Amino acid sequence: MAVETLYRSTRDLETLFVDRKLADAHDQMLELAESLTGLLMSNVQGLSETLAEEVSIYLAKNRSVLASAFKNNVGALAELSQPASDANAESDQP
Amino acid sequence: MAVETLYRSTRDLETLFVDRKLADAHDQMLELAESLTGLLMSNVQGLSETLAEEVSIYLAKNRSVLASAFKNNVGALAELSQPASDANAESDQP
Repeated sequence: MAVETLYRSTRDLETLFVDRKLADAHDQMLELAESLTGLLMSNVQGLSETLAEEVSIYLAKNRSVLASAFKNNVGALAELSQPASDANAESDQP
Repeated sequence: MAVETLYRSTRDLETLFVDRKLADAHDQMLELAESLTGLLMSNVQGLSETLAEEVSIYLAKNRSVLASAFKNNVGALAELSQPASDANAESDQP
């Protein structure tokens, strides 16, 4: 028997991590998603909170590719179109 | 009477510009929005094409703020939360 240290984001109490870095990344992803959800709900008429959240989490999970696409490189999005390669820390299997 | 030169994006035949730079910006915004719409529709279940398009156009119109938010600066989104300033990609009001 032993004791181990666990980490979780206060934004998502159900997801536990043994690696603090992964917990940090998860928290930052959720922080971004939360802000995006609010923005989308105030700016896109007819978008439900559930859909706004799902869109936001998808965007936040892929933030680095999107940062590049939004900056100047639309082509970067092609990386997300390939269904096979889903190399996220959060792992999001289809 | 005179003849003037007009510009439009082939992605949106209804919006005409007298300034070619603005037409270019509009075309680039629509190009990004088109790619985003496809991505969102394949990755967010239950999102209609209409909503996916509206979300994507909102995101694409605010691409520079979002590029910064996605890169590392979530706080940048605060700029978009101020209800008074409804700035298009074309105009650049503070």
